[in-house]
Parts: sequence; structure tokens; C-alpha cells
Amino acid sequence: MKKLNNNINHLISTDDMSQELIIKIFDTAESFLEIGQRDIKKVPLLRGKTVCNLFFENSTRTRTTFEIAAKRLSADVINIDIPTSSQSKGESIFDMVDNLIAMGTDIFVIRHSEAGIPKKISNHVDVGIHVINGGDGSNAHPTQGLLDAFTIRKYKKHFSGLTIAIVGDIQHSRVAKSEISVLSALGTKEIRVIGPESLMPNNINELKVKVFNTIEDGLKDVDVIMMLRIQKERMNNNTIPSESQYFESFGLTQKRLQIAKKDALVLHPGPINRGVEIDSEVADGKQSVILNQVKFGIAIRMAVMIMMVNKKT
Amino acid sequence: MKKLNNNINHLISTDDMSQELIIKIFDTAESFLEIGQRDIKKVPLLRGKTVCNLFFENSTRTRTTFEIAAKRLSADVINIDIPTSSQSKGESIFDMVDNLIAMGTDIFVIRHSEAGIPKKISNHVDVGIHVINGGDGSNAHPTQGLLDAFTIRKYKKHFSGLTIAIVGDIQHSRVAKSEISVLSALGTKEIRVIGPESLMPNNINELKVKVFNTIEDGLKDVDVIMMLRIQKERMNNNTIPSESQYFESFGLTQKRLQIAKKDALVLHPGPINRGVEIDSEVADGKQSVILNQVKFGIAIRMAVMIMMVNKKT
Amino acid sequence: MKKLNNNINHLISTDDMSQELIIKIFDTAESFLEIGQRDIKKVPLLRGKTVCNLFFENSTRTRTTFEIAAKRLSADVINIDIPTSSQSKGESIFDMVDNLIAMGTDIFVIRHSEAGIPKKISNHVDVGIHVINGGDGSNAHPTQGLLDAFTIRKYKKHFSGLTIAIVGDIQHSRVAKSEISVLSALGTKEIRVIGPESLMPNNINELKVKVFNTIEDGLKDVDVIMMLRIQKERMNNNTIPSESQYFESFGLTQKRLQIAKKDALVLHPGPINRGVEIDSEVADGKQSVILNQVKFGIAIRMAVMIMMVNKKT
Repeated sequence: MKKLNNNINHLISTDDMSQELIIKIFDTAESFLEIGQRDIKKVPLLRGKTVCNLFFENSTRTRTTFEIAAKRLSADVINIDIPTSSQSKGESIFDMVDNLIAMGTDIFVIRHSEAGIPKKISNHVDVGIHVINGGDGSNAHPTQGLLDAFTIRKYKKHFSGLTIAIVGDIQHSRVAKSEISVLSALGTKEIRVIGPESLMPNNINELKVKVFNTIEDGLKDVDVIMMLRIQKERMNNNTIPSESQYFESFGLTQKRLQIAKKDALVLHPGPINRGVEIDSEVADGKQSVILNQVKFGIAIRMAVMIMMVNKKT
Repeated sequence: MKKLNNNINHLISTDDMSQELIIKIFDTAESFLEIGQRDIKKVPLLRGKTVCNLFFENSTRTRTTFEIAAKRLSADVINIDIPTSSQSKGESIFDMVDNLIAMGTDIFVIRHSEAGIPKKISNHVDVGIHVINGGDGSNAHPTQGLLDAFTIRKYKKHFSGLTIAIVGDIQHSRVAKSEISVLSALGTKEIRVIGPESLMPNNINELKVKVFNTIEDGLKDVDVIMMLRIQKERMNNNTIPSESQYFESFGLTQKRLQIAKKDALVLHPGPINRGVEIDSEVADGKQSVILNQVKFGIAIRMAVMIMMVNKKT
Repeated sequence: MKKLNNNINHLISTDDMSQELIIKIFDTAESFLEIGQRDIKKVPLLRGKTVCNLFFENSTRTRTTFEIAAKRLSADVINIDIPTSSQSKGESIFDMVDNLIAMGTDIFVIRHSEAGIPKKISNHVDVGIHVINGGDGSNAHPTQGLLDAFTIRKYKKHFSGLTIAIVGDIQHSRVAKSEISVLSALGTKEIRVIGPESLMPNNINELKVKVFNTIEDGLKDVDVIMMLRIQKERMNNNTIPSESQYFESFGLTQKRLQIAKKDALVLHPGPINRGVEIDSEVADGKQSVILNQVKFGIAIRMAVMIMMVNKKT
């Protein structure tokens, strides 16, 4: 158990991570943040290694963060985008992965619309090959959860005194799930989830979170507000109301922000829907740390990659 | 004013460039041309910097020239192609740019079908981030204007003695606008524009150019002929006549080339439409410097990038 | 003649390769295989060179192998994918190639659905620019033929004692053609082709191969079985029967494998169609060297590139 704590072989989920391991990732990321300030933002730690971004779900943004993190470590990067439509069987994903390993891939970043695919691939590959989950269905997005908590640590130090609210479509959000798991492991005093009842997961009572169905109640005295992106596709499905209705009920406005603590932070995993889940005034305001999340995200991804490859340390 | 002349912070347009600055860019490009002849065509001047090609209008060709220029300077390159259709508001372009800066982008190359977008982005970004206009609507294409004039300098030396004709759809051509502005700044003796009256810009009288509506009149005694690419899309709109009609009236044939000076150069920004604006015999002929424009274009783009980043010098 | 044997300027086809040259490529590849085992899988042999993957026919897989091979040699790689639909005339391919040379391309890897295009391009380019055929129509796929024979050499040593069977759609397969040519040059004792009569090329009698129309007869006593990928598109055209019918007649099952020699190797160029031309049990079985083909393919491609550029040695 202890040995597991000090290592990342694959990063599939944050659920089984010890506080110790998370803090180790954060401390490693801290050293990479400094590199981002240098004139030459590059270190040779992964020189000669190949990172393959294998994306079955399109995301230029997330793919770019992994690409930049890998290049900053001097790795070679191969980007492979596969429309899910052209992929039917899990079996042929394994064949594809096996081929990319035979070509020399050391680290895979896998994004897939189906929950569980990165886990299956990590079970499939040999020792010495590493898999990072870049987001799988509504299951997990571990690097996002880690970078969000890392961002909070940069401003708020100790989690044991913090009340943190996550606002939006909790049920379908892999980001929310990973955030809750990391914040729990870090000993956050109180985690709240805020959203319409229809967008709460069925197992919400099993998670150690407090549920709020109005944002006005939920934001009282919170130290950190973590907004979720509304998937507009879901609106058309009538799962959630219209954009304007959603904004009226759950959009983070300057007025609602004042319900939280005076120095509350505002986070968002991006890309933001201005005027849907968040008002521009808040997104661009003094309490927003949204762009710092992106910056810190590069350092977190560098840390994860380097810790995988240098497992012995 | 003088200080401005010696620096490029962003390259949005050539309109406000001094002769001194243009010559400085040319002299810097000259040194990079030499690198292109070496066995190892690479220098570490932008090592650890990230160049992001953010293309809202598809152009494999232009994107590749910037990509090669950046890689030859040892920069990391991120290519992002966004179909204009998926982008509606300028606001979300700013969000995208802010995110790419947070990830560590140092230089943006922006191409957009709407005039003014690169300018807006350059106004938006912080000190230390640089924007190159890779072509915006029918407004400007500054690196093309610069490389065209650089090509002329390689063969003809002094602009004060030159008569230069630009032939084609002047009105819609960002290339023509940038060429006129650079050639003017360099003190070209006479700049002519040749094309049907319907394809002349409304403000043509404000520009210091001579207008010709027949190619036979316009080419008399010119030292340099700069052909423009005909956008075939416009033909379908009836803005310009059919391909064969256009070729008959304004296509550059060997016979028409003889109207110009004996040693007149032929330039074209590419890709060429053989048999539409230019005859194959001319495009591949001895007076054509079309492929050298491409080669010189890499050096010009290297020069611009390096001068931006090393502004103090 | 002798001089030709020791050099590769372009790699268009394996038809005119001497045994000596093929063995030289294999020996060079052998040294690159070792690099693939190192911690830092990178050598600076092509530093400052530019490799352009110019693919007129989509193949992420083949493109990636060339990209990885080039990056492992420290070359800069430019990927250009052009849907054949947007390309009509050979002439404009030449213009495209000329532009990419002007930008600094040293090596082209060309894939095209039309046989002969890489050859035409190799005739067109200047001295010092090299062309690799990455597969042209049903004509040739030389690096695949070379890597397949290299794989056989790794396990079986001398070709003079080997009986090798190629199974599938011989007529339309560029892979089969390149395999036959390399295996012949290496002095293979007996080359067999197995497939329905309708899928045999018209000139089959000119090739020094034995033709079998049943797999049961063809596999008797063979040392190596080289399966071909069935193009499912052809099934819809009624050129070949349904998937299940094909599998029943020509699919490689464990039972059929036992007809061959006990230690017979199974090869497949990939991607495999499980249950169509090959049973999963065989593809994943002990006699399959399919993934090693992929690994060896990187080394073969590195060898070809480096031998082109260092022609004098």
C-alpha cells in the first residue's frame, strides 16, 4: 500500500490516490512552474521518449496542453485523432495501441467518450508503458482534478479549513468526479455540490458532499467556487433547461459571488460559456483564477509524466 | 518615432513601417538565407519558445512556411486549425488566445477571413507576447509583402530606379495592399496596378499608384511584374469573368511578358493557377522567381520572429 | 550497375534492388534497432533536415511510422494530408512539391492512390532531394516489402532454404508485389501465392511464384505465411465474397496453421481484420510476429532515410 502511494504507473483516476502522492505531484509541478518562467522553457527530462495523444473524442484544447507539457520535457509527440464513428470494437483499439507501442510509444494520453477505455488499455499494456486518462465519458478527468486542487493550494494553502462548492451538471461531469476525489483525499473541510436535482448523480449520498439545489444557499461562506462547463448538447436533449433559464438559476454573477467569502476563488475548467454558467464580469474579475488553472495545468501534466517514467524515485 | 522604427513588437501591417525597419528585416533575413544552405539548417535562437499557428482560414501552404521557419529557429510549434464556422464571436477568440498564452505561447501567427482580427488580438495580449498577421480578409498579408520586396532586392538592388506592376484583382487582394505599402516605403520609382476597373479598390486614387486597365499598356517598360492569384470562388459570383476570359484579358503570356523590360522579373505569391492568371511557359520560364519567393519567405519569417523576441537589439 | 547497387537515391520500388543493397539496408536497420532499446531513442543523424509526409491517401498508421522514424533521427517533420478529391492534375502536384522543396524539404514520403505518382515526382525533383514511395495504388509499397523480409531474416536467417506463402488478394496488393520482389532478390527457395483465381494478377505467370487456389494445398511445408489485408471496400464491389465466406475459404485459423511447418512464422502488414483474413488465436499466437514487423519497420525506415542522405558511403 505504501509503495503504491509513492508511485504513479498509470493515471486513470484519482480515486485511489493517497494524500501523500497528490502532494508529491504538486511539489513536482511546483518545480516545473518555475521552468515556465524561464527564457528557455525546456528541460531534457523526456528526451528520446515518445508521447502519443490518442484522442477518440475531439479536444484541441486538452490535447494541446498535453502536447506542450510533453514538448517542454523534450519528448517527441505523436497526435492521433480518431473520430469515434470509425471505431467500433474495443478489440481494435487494443490492436491500435499495440501497434503504437511497437512503434515506440512510451506514454499514452487517451481520451474517449466511453468510460473505462483508458483503464482497459492500462490493463492491456506491458510494464514500462504508461497510460494517462485524458477524460473518459462521464467517469474521470484526473489531470483536471489535480490541477484544480493545485490551483487552490497556490492561493489557499491548507485544505482542512476550506469549504469548496462545485456548481453545475454534477451527474455528467467527469471533472466534478475527479475534483471531489482529489479534494476529499486532501482533507477538504466541506465539499458542496450545487445544481438542479435532475443533474445530481444517483449515488450522490455515497460521496461525502453536501447537496444544494439553489446557488444562493450553496455559496454561503464558501472559500472556493468551482464552476462546471454546461454541455450545450444536453440542452437540446431537454436534460437541462435553456441557456437563459440555466443562467438565471445557476449562472455565477457578481451578485451571487458576493454570497461567498470575500476572498473566494472562482475556477472553471474551460472553455467557458459566457452568459450561460458564468457572467463575463466574474470570469474576467479579480477573484477568477481560470487562466492560472491553464498555466498550472501544464506543470501538473509535466509532473505526472515525469513521475511515471521515473517511478523508482 | 525613431524607436518604433527599429523594433517589431507585432507584425500586423506594413503600413507603418519605416524604410529603415524594412531594410533591417531584409538584412536579418539575408543571414538566415545562409542557414538554409547549410547541411544542418537549424539554429537554437528560439529554443524553448512556443509558436502557435492559429488558423481560422485554411492554408496548409502558409501555415507550413511559418512552421518550417519556427522549427528552423528550434521553436516548438503548435498548429491549431479552426473552421470559421465553429467560431462566431470575437470574444471567444480572445478566450482561446488567453488560454494559449496561459499554456505558454510566445508568438501567434493568426490567419482569419475577417479583416482586423490579428490587430484586435495584438491589442489584447500582454507585453512579451507577439502577433504576426498571416493574412486577414482582404486587409493585409505583411510577410508576403515583405518577402516579395526582398525577392526584388535580391535581383534588382535599388528600388529608386524601378517600375513595378501588380496585376490582377487589386480590390480583394491583401497581398497587393501589403506589396504597395512595402514598395512605397522602399522608395520605388513607380508602382502600377493593372486589372479590370471592377477589381480596383474605391480608394485607389489615395494610393500612390498608376492605374491601368489593359495589361498591354501597363507592362510597358516595367522592371518587375507581380501577378496576383485569382480566387476562383469569385468567378462563380460573377465578380470577375470566366477563367478563359480572364486569361485572354489579363493572363501573363510569353508574348505579353515581352512588353516589359527584357530582364523583367515575374513574381507570384502562389499557389499559381496555370492558364488562368499566368501561362505555364512564363511561370516556369527564366524570368520567373516564383520558387525563390517561397525560399526567401522562410528567411523573412525567421527574421520577423527573431526580431520580435529580441526587441531590445 | 555496381554503383547503383550500393546507393539509394529514391525508394520507389524494390524491383531494381540488388541482393547486396537489400542486405546493406538490413544491416543498417539492425544498428537502428539497438537505438530503439535505449533509454534515449534518438540520434542526431538527420538534425536540420526536413522530412515531408505528403499523403494523398489517408493512412495515420503508415504516416506515423515515417514520422517516428524521422523524429528518432532528429529530423523536422511536416505532415501534409491532401484528400485526393482536392487534387485533379499531376501538374499541380509538381507545383506543390516544388514549393515544399523551396521551403527546404529534403526527403518526401509520398502516398497516393494512383500508381506511378512517386516515380513521377522522383523524376521531377533535383539532385539532393529524395523521394520514398509510401504506397502507390496497387503498384508498390517498398518499405513494407523490405521490413517484411527483414522480419523473416531476424528469425529464419537464410532465404535460400525457405518456402514462403503470400495469402490473399494478390492482384490488388502493392504489399504482395513488393514482398515478391524483395524475396526473389534475396534468393528465396520458393515463393507461393495463395488466393482465389479471381484475385490473381494477369501477369502471374511472369512472376517466379507458384500459384495455389486453396489455402490447404498452399500452406503445406511452408516456413513463412504472409497474410494480406482484405480491403473491405472490395467486398461491397462483389470482387471478393463476403467476410464470412472469405474467412471460410482463406482465413488463417489455428488448424490451417498446422498444415505449415511447426515453426512457421505468421506475418501481416496490418491493420488486421480479425475473423476475416486471420483468426484472433493466430494473430495473437506464438508464431505471429506481426507486432515485431511494426517495430522493425521503424528501423527499416530510419535505415532507408539515412542511406539516401549519406549516399557517398
